[in-house]
Amino acid sequence: MDNGLLVVISGPSGAGKGTLCKRLKSEMKDLKVSVSATTRKPREGEVEGESYFFINEDEFIKKINNDEFLEYACVYGNYYGTPKKEVFKQLEDGNDIILEIDIQGALQVKKNYPIGVFIFILPPSLNELQNRIEGRGTDTKEVILKRMQCAYDELDYAFEYDYVVLNDQVETAVQKIQCIINAEKNRAIRKKAIINKIREV
Amino acid sequence: MDNGLLVVISGPSGAGKGTLCKRLKSEMKDLKVSVSATTRKPREGEVEGESYFFINEDEFIKKINNDEFLEYACVYGNYYGTPKKEVFKQLEDGNDIILEIDIQGALQVKKNYPIGVFIFILPPSLNELQNRIEGRGTDTKEVILKRMQCAYDELDYAFEYDYVVLNDQVETAVQKIQCIINAEKNRAIRKKAIINKIREV
Repeated sequence: MDNGLLVVISGPSGAGKGTLCKRLKSEMKDLKVSVSATTRKPREGEVEGESYFFINEDEFIKKINNDEFLEYACVYGNYYGTPKKEVFKQLEDGNDIILEIDIQGALQVKKNYPIGVFIFILPPSLNELQNRIEGRGTDTKEVILKRMQCAYDELDYAFEYDYVVLNDQVETAVQKIQCIINAEKNRAIRKKAIINKIREV
Repeated sequence: MDNGLLVVISGPSGAGKGTLCKRLKSEMKDLKVSVSATTRKPREGEVEGESYFFINEDEFIKKINNDEFLEYACVYGNYYGTPKKEVFKQLEDGNDIILEIDIQGALQVKKNYPIGVFIFILPPSLNELQNRIEGRGTDTKEVILKRMQCAYDELDYAFEYDYVVLNDQVETAVQKIQCIINAEKNRAIRKKAIINKIREV
């Protein structure tokens, strides 16, 4: 059986990664979601092993030192990371996994698992990106300005990815990503097994 | 505007390249077909510039020496080749081109135009391949045996391609190729223009 695909959905804050991933998960029922580990305390309703693996800081740092993460980051004093073990087990079982992640995280994943499928989500324009970030109403003017500068710089990283998908219309972007996932299943690098099988028959 | 894609459909004799290409052309109306040059005499009903560009051997050899072909071959004493000029003009105009070609030709094209999309068509099994070649009724037993040995060896070349598509059912194979073409339009390497545009707005 073919290994599953690790599909990394990434891009600047405000590009619409979250919405796209939600839609993809509901349309592609077989797509598994990777569960992150974190040192943050569980919030109400969060379930161990579903929302996150909740572990303490000592454990987390031990795992970092043992190279057990595909990627990790420290955000506002809490660690978050994607455990290799869980992800690799799913891939070996032939399941496709989707991972929604920021650019720094995606570049770490690429280093650890270069045969993943790396998709950069583009906002339709920087103006639109600003509207979206402002629309959330969660950030101060200074933070928004900083985010915009950051987004401008981050566009350079698009060329480190395999694909760039413009998210001007959610429907179209979801279709494009579905198409990319299906196309990637036919990549020559993933087809050794079938060619050997044809030779046998 | 983005450049068009050069889509190369290739694989062993009997894999079903011809049928797939015909179906693709009828389903994807925008797909252009490359017109080859040949030194073979026109057959009844063949139209200059549509069926082939008919040229004489001196002209052909001059073009070889001027590096004017994406690929060329000599078959049963006649030359056949794909002119770079025509193909590149179409690609620059933003048109996608489909090129149905044997493995040796595809490898030449890859050398001359590595950013093409190279798709290797797999027969479902070597038995089935043998049935198909025998079904044509055009080859002697010796030729068929030689073709089968050739197909077996040629499977190794699949890994020089970008994609490998199993042609067990024409319908499914056509859908896969359409998906590959659409996915390839989102390749990061083809997206420089749009990223620069987003920065401007």
